[in-house]
Amino acid sequence: MTTASDRSLKDRAAEVMPGGVYGHLSTGRMSPNYPQFFARAKGAHLWDVEGRKYLDFMCAFGPNLLGYGHDEVNAAYVDQLALGDVMTGPSPVAVELAETFVDMVDGVDWVLFCKNGNDATTAALMTARKHTGKATIVRAIGAYHGSAPWCALGDAGVGPHDQADQIFHRYNDVEDLERAVKQAGGDLAAIFVSPIKHDIIIDQELPDPAYAKRARELCDETGALLVVDNVRAGFRLTRGCSWTAMGVTPDLSSWGKSLANGHALSALTGANAAKTAASQIFVTGSFWFAAAPMAAALVTLRILRETDYLEHTIRLAEKLRTGLHAAAQNHGFGLRQTGPAQIPLVTFEDDPELKMTQAWTGALVQKGVYFHPYHNMFFCAAMTDGDIDHALVQADAAFAEIKA
Amino acid sequence: MTTASDRSLKDRAAEVMPGGVYGHLSTGRMSPNYPQFFARAKGAHLWDVEGRKYLDFMCAFGPNLLGYGHDEVNAAYVDQLALGDVMTGPSPVAVELAETFVDMVDGVDWVLFCKNGNDATTAALMTARKHTGKATIVRAIGAYHGSAPWCALGDAGVGPHDQADQIFHRYNDVEDLERAVKQAGGDLAAIFVSPIKHDIIIDQELPDPAYAKRARELCDETGALLVVDNVRAGFRLTRGCSWTAMGVTPDLSSWGKSLANGHALSALTGANAAKTAASQIFVTGSFWFAAAPMAAALVTLRILRETDYLEHTIRLAEKLRTGLHAAAQNHGFGLRQTGPAQIPLVTFEDDPELKMTQAWTGALVQKGVYFHPYHNMFFCAAMTDGDIDHALVQADAAFAEIKA
Repeated sequence: MTTASDRSLKDRAAEVMPGGVYGHLSTGRMSPNYPQFFARAKGAHLWDVEGRKYLDFMCAFGPNLLGYGHDEVNAAYVDQLALGDVMTGPSPVAVELAETFVDMVDGVDWVLFCKNGNDATTAALMTARKHTGKATIVRAIGAYHGSAPWCALGDAGVGPHDQADQIFHRYNDVEDLERAVKQAGGDLAAIFVSPIKHDIIIDQELPDPAYAKRARELCDETGALLVVDNVRAGFRLTRGCSWTAMGVTPDLSSWGKSLANGHALSALTGANAAKTAASQIFVTGSFWFAAAPMAAALVTLRILRETDYLEHTIRLAEKLRTGLHAAAQNHGFGLRQTGPAQIPLVTFEDDPELKMTQAWTGALVQKGVYFHPYHNMFFCAAMTDGDIDHALVQADAAFAEIKA
Repeated sequence: MTTASDRSLKDRAAEVMPGGVYGHLSTGRMSPNYPQFFARAKGAHLWDVEGRKYLDFMCAFGPNLLGYGHDEVNAAYVDQLALGDVMTGPSPVAVELAETFVDMVDGVDWVLFCKNGNDATTAALMTARKHTGKATIVRAIGAYHGSAPWCALGDAGVGPHDQADQIFHRYNDVEDLERAVKQAGGDLAAIFVSPIKHDIIIDQELPDPAYAKRARELCDETGALLVVDNVRAGFRLTRGCSWTAMGVTPDLSSWGKSLANGHALSALTGANAAKTAASQIFVTGSFWFAAAPMAAALVTLRILRETDYLEHTIRLAEKLRTGLHAAAQNHGFGLRQTGPAQIPLVTFEDDPELKMTQAWTGALVQKGVYFHPYHNMFFCAAMTDGDIDHALVQADAAFAEIKA
């Protein structure tokens, strides 16, 4: 339940921040049971400002992959901070990290580090336009690539020309993709895709291999660049680039969120063919070469290579999915569980306004299990079988509660 | 002198990063004497990868205001990191910091935190367009507001419509500003200005109060918003908003770099009139509510309020400026020292290609004093009279060297 302290913080926030808490962390469209603020995080858990504990299936909307406050990752951060972080030049750790990334991910020949995921998708846009000398971007309806004017999903504050030179198509629809590319005429600079369809509210979709392959072919035929935006799903589907398993290697990929297990770092990576163009655009930021997040990323990538974090999260995620399905059925509910099990969206059948989903997740959060009613969720490697068992017990109780 | 290790790192960087080190930290257009990488930073000093020490007049291009590795600031960061940093919701520290900012800076009623300076200028653009329902931005020729396509200074990777709805004018030229506003017709959303003219290479200029006041009047007359971009100069001219001393309060201000003394944090601040619009745009980033940089910013702002960091840096800066003038004259050189003493650009008279400036700064860096040949420089509070004396001795020796 929202506590007096949380309400008081929300009131204070509304005084000094536009709309109070803004962006994707706002609980404004969720049950009032959700706490807005957190005092502490460790492993798979969060504590609100009155000390209530939550098993967190949002993982900070992705950055938390190995567990909050990961000792080894944070020790690397703190050690590098003591040496030097944001300086008048990069630290050697920038080179080490780029080399590590190139060694680790097939199809990646170079890395351009930045700060937000949106910095990386914007650098991809600019690299593709410079590489091709063309302007048009083909991307999917409803896909999120950041909140800058060129990719904002809403129109508030977006100028009349900010999304010029863009053509939209339906994800996973080969014919519609071909139509969009044809419509670009000779002006196609890039096809932007998410590795999975992970738009908010609506069902998620895994990529159809035929769609992925056709996107690659269309780029090869036209000289455009294929951009896979791994910011949200990166390192959660595979240890490499998200489409590699389908035999599709993009020219450019964007990464962020989990790259340094929660420390602020993002990256645009690319193939050699696009390297010259990437070196000709001028993109930069005050904190992009900060060394401490890079030291944290070096440890994060090593742990990704050396541990079973991926198999572990997938196994737990499938256990949760199976368990939720059974529990829902027992109570006479039908769940829509879409997307990869470890990046799940969970909603109710026949619930277009998400009323059942809101009621159920609102009951769950009160029981200490943080599910999201309309955004895909995330697993982290710090979760245990015991956590999933606990979540299933509470989910069952929440089903019973909303049925009553 | 560039060391073998630095050269080797540059070679490795060129293999795995586009163009090697990119953006404003690249030393590609500077004397080969400049080290590209740094292993360590503390106070006012940097150490390159072979342990050579430099008195650093770049301060990481601005983020370092109180000294590198500031113990109190970094302790706040590390303590908050142990509690929780990037989480599924903000920490209460976000509210405390916004309240502190509002209390501290006149004309600031609310704060929207983000990560890069460019996030803040982009949020200003979107807020102004939403507030006015209009599109056109008037801004100054050559002014840097970030590297996103809408504000990039070059054209590499910039699409044909990315800078539509923008009209340029000459900084400090009231008539030209009036011409630009007139040209916007009824479509003016905002006037964007830097608090000082701090374009690269060319002489800096302090704002003419008549220009600042006219910008404010033109916004009042048209309903457009006045945006002062404090990212680079914020808290280096005054403890408040950069134009307040001239009696000009902007509707929106962007901040970054020094806000958390080097930790990644930026902010858009505004007056109440623009708060509704700021709450209606959707802007966000994975790391924008990270609590550790906010805890660092809380300490930074307290130190700014409680110490003489500003008077100290101005006094040392004026001492350097006076000393450099005298030393240059002694050797028969004329220096152009423009901008505020504490954000100085130092070039040579009659040196349009910066050959003398490059030779002199190249000699200086070899003597352990890091000046920049074409970008404005920065002072930090960790500098001492002894540091300035040392810099002046080395500057004198560098004048003698290039004369020979």
